[in-house]
Amino acid sequence: MKSITRRDFLSKSTLLAGSAYPAMMALGLMKPVPAYAFELEKNANGKKVIILGAGLAGMTAAYELNRLGYQCTVLEARDRTGGRCWSVRNNTTHTEKDQPQVTAKFDEGLYFNAGPSRIPHNHELTLHYCKELGVPIQVYNNVNESAYFFAEGKGPLSNKKVRNREIHNDVRGYMMEMLAKSMDHGNLDNPLTKEDGQKIIEYLMAEGGLDADKLYKASARRGYIESPGAGNKPGRIADPYTLADILRSGLMDPDFYNVAEYTYELQMTMFQAVGGMDSIARALEKKIAPMIRMGAEVTSIHNVTDGVKVTYKDAAGIHELQADLCVCTIPLPVLSNISTNFSSDVSRAIDYISYNQTGKIGLQFKRRFWEEDEHIYGGITHTNNELTQIFYPSYDYLDKKGILIGYYNFNEKAQQLGELSYADREKLALQKGRLIHPQYDKEFERSFSVSWHKTKYNMGGWAVYTSDTRSNAYPALLKPDGNVYFAGEHLTYLNAWMAGAFESARSVVANIHSRVTEARIAYPTQSTKG
Amino acid sequence: MKSITRRDFLSKSTLLAGSAYPAMMALGLMKPVPAYAFELEKNANGKKVIILGAGLAGMTAAYELNRLGYQCTVLEARDRTGGRCWSVRNNTTHTEKDQPQVTAKFDEGLYFNAGPSRIPHNHELTLHYCKELGVPIQVYNNVNESAYFFAEGKGPLSNKKVRNREIHNDVRGYMMEMLAKSMDHGNLDNPLTKEDGQKIIEYLMAEGGLDADKLYKASARRGYIESPGAGNKPGRIADPYTLADILRSGLMDPDFYNVAEYTYELQMTMFQAVGGMDSIARALEKKIAPMIRMGAEVTSIHNVTDGVKVTYKDAAGIHELQADLCVCTIPLPVLSNISTNFSSDVSRAIDYISYNQTGKIGLQFKRRFWEEDEHIYGGITHTNNELTQIFYPSYDYLDKKGILIGYYNFNEKAQQLGELSYADREKLALQKGRLIHPQYDKEFERSFSVSWHKTKYNMGGWAVYTSDTRSNAYPALLKPDGNVYFAGEHLTYLNAWMAGAFESARSVVANIHSRVTEARIAYPTQSTKG
Repeated sequence: MKSITRRDFLSKSTLLAGSAYPAMMALGLMKPVPAYAFELEKNANGKKVIILGAGLAGMTAAYELNRLGYQCTVLEARDRTGGRCWSVRNNTTHTEKDQPQVTAKFDEGLYFNAGPSRIPHNHELTLHYCKELGVPIQVYNNVNESAYFFAEGKGPLSNKKVRNREIHNDVRGYMMEMLAKSMDHGNLDNPLTKEDGQKIIEYLMAEGGLDADKLYKASARRGYIESPGAGNKPGRIADPYTLADILRSGLMDPDFYNVAEYTYELQMTMFQAVGGMDSIARALEKKIAPMIRMGAEVTSIHNVTDGVKVTYKDAAGIHELQADLCVCTIPLPVLSNISTNFSSDVSRAIDYISYNQTGKIGLQFKRRFWEEDEHIYGGITHTNNELTQIFYPSYDYLDKKGILIGYYNFNEKAQQLGELSYADREKLALQKGRLIHPQYDKEFERSFSVSWHKTKYNMGGWAVYTSDTRSNAYPALLKPDGNVYFAGEHLTYLNAWMAGAFESARSVVANIHSRVTEARIAYPTQSTKG
Repeated sequence: MKSITRRDFLSKSTLLAGSAYPAMMALGLMKPVPAYAFELEKNANGKKVIILGAGLAGMTAAYELNRLGYQCTVLEARDRTGGRCWSVRNNTTHTEKDQPQVTAKFDEGLYFNAGPSRIPHNHELTLHYCKELGVPIQVYNNVNESAYFFAEGKGPLSNKKVRNREIHNDVRGYMMEMLAKSMDHGNLDNPLTKEDGQKIIEYLMAEGGLDADKLYKASARRGYIESPGAGNKPGRIADPYTLADILRSGLMDPDFYNVAEYTYELQMTMFQAVGGMDSIARALEKKIAPMIRMGAEVTSIHNVTDGVKVTYKDAAGIHELQADLCVCTIPLPVLSNISTNFSSDVSRAIDYISYNQTGKIGLQFKRRFWEEDEHIYGGITHTNNELTQIFYPSYDYLDKKGILIGYYNFNEKAQQLGELSYADREKLALQKGRLIHPQYDKEFERSFSVSWHKTKYNMGGWAVYTSDTRSNAYPALLKPDGNVYFAGEHLTYLNAWMAGAFESARSVVANIHSRVTEARIAYPTQSTKG
């Protein structure tokens, strides 16, 4: 073992895994690629670590700790790895509270991502692991101007499917027109010069597609009612919707109009793993397969004098496992029901932090009618009804069959659908979906739905913090409770994203390694060697 | 031969290929997929057709005419098919006026599309042919908020690479703030109710990312200077640029700020053919290979009493070919120099319609630094200098090497670069490019540039109409000149797009077939049978 000083280590770990590196990268002081190679000094003192949960956080922790020389055991309650990083395909099984176990029946080659389905291009660590693990990626087409807005039973555009491009360009046109008019009237008190003002007018005219009179009348940007073509076909465009009609159908409501596409995480470019997002989980699993015990449901976690003791049950019975340290990635709503001797602060935080309710349904269709009939390739239709969103698949374009996500909803709507039987969820998805796509009637084949807050071993979508829980509960879980460290998306500001799992795992690995390599100075207990 | 009446044929051809079908599809009266199967009655009277040019228009005409029973011969001046649908890869050769012939030296597997590189999702006929010909497609990532704006030597943000997301969100924020302020002051005279007004304010706040005081201060939408992460890392955002700085650097100028992304053709979803856009040309070529004579440069086209006579020269000498009909897809600047006996109206139109000047350079780099260092995956950086645009590749993400398009420019800038030697074009692309990407210095390997207006057998990018040429020249080429029909993107309202070639070819095929099948009524001449 090469001896390193505390200063050596700190400067190294701060650089590679500590709080300084994102800042330094942003400032251009570091090349990010070398930084993502997690090159801590291999020097584990032979320590044993039990990792609870083989989701992305748990497997990444095992993968990185193992490379540093730790002896890892990963306990996974399910008979598969990946946790929420999960693609549903033929023969996938699933268990929800108050529901019979179900098995998916889809055509071979078709799948949908029941959990995360999108990788933001700025989640560099997720892309780093895709690259390092050899997982090919492809564009997830999150922004699609051809997808619809659909306001059921609301206003003048009620039950009419209107294209994103129509609403986006009409609204942009009207807003720019209003602002141009206001500027012309000299109604704006601002410190800009006359020349600046003229440039803004020019911008407004271009941005809004205004005519020479600075009016929004019509625009090819919103699409054609007769496409331009060969010969005498210049194309024909329709009149825009009126601003009042759009407003009164709620299509400019903040929770409907998709400003979501402006958010940092949902801006194009977005990616997905080729063949299903679980390719990432499977690639990680491959790296650490011998360390994983499947079907091992944790029943207790206790700090003991010289380490940590975990009990779990599997098909063979009850088992006890002891190690120096533990990384617990179990989702908090599940952890809340496991026996522990955690501090009262930690226990309270586990009970107190909320997870959201969310669900998806995959609908297999005989024919990709959304592409063939409606020219929608990927992207999202937004509705004001229970469906909330329909996701069109971003793979196998122009192919014969496809699975679309018939709803992806949250909170009350997800709660309501989660209460239904699988058959009734399907019924509702079809009933509401055919208002938008009447082809559902003829082309539907099979469904498979997942309600995350009812899913065994999850009991929630992802951690949703209030300013109260972020201030008063979250900090308790950032420190180890004795020899138990907590990791997962819930211990980050990247909630709901796979990047949270990766970032959190790395952070905990760095903290553990810091403690272990400084053992002669600061580490209080020494456990048995393996 | 099954006899059909004029009425039978007209109703059929109008439905399938005539001017009514886009309207009918738009109205939802027809399913588009069956419509795209071009099912005219097979009934060619054994007619022979010479097709000039094996670009997309010529090959599509040959493919469709052949299926209807015509005997087609395609004359292609080059030793390759595809015309402008052309991907440059290792060993690609190229000839420009006043330049030596050049051969591309790229690594195997790398390519760039020197001609069309994007398929709009609403160009249904292009996607139809991809599907029918079995050409796999993938997303072309045209919209990327991570790409840069770069204003060389202009204003306070001069020579600073600013992300699209920064400018887009800052400008949106300031504009929405101005409009909200104006509405608060009651400065807008419009017929909206107070409730509508309140809803607009709510929209403006969401759209602009305004704070509770309706001010645009800062927004995570424009990115972080310290990314959110695990533990105590909520992320840190920077102050926005001032509106004055953005304005005065020209970043809101209509020809710079990318409102282009709003246009119907450039909205997401966009596609490209996997492995290079020339996959489409190669798939068409495969269908009609025996009909093509390569290296056959047309020297004259003459209407004769009983058909058309074409002379061409190839390596073996001068040849003469006669047929009943001809489809001429030769670009007008080239056709202008070929001997013909066309009418004066047609000749004038050929001489009079302008083509644009445009060029691209492909730059091969050792390392995908734009992805690894700068997190740019596909999309376009816009500049105010000679480069105009840098296109990042939308394939092989996370791979080792890549080719980016170092400039894609038009008109005066393309003219200026076209005058340079290949070496000097490379020099300029690198000199200007390294202002944005200093990695050019270390990572550059090889280049290959194409100046379309100097390219033999093209002599222009695509037809660019003025209202004058559209009204006074264009119509002359929509009718056949005797037995010669004209086809290509230049004979559509889809100039510059592959869809123009396909639409035009189909239109001409329908017109020819109409004339031939009605021969007993209206066709004036009968030629020899083959």
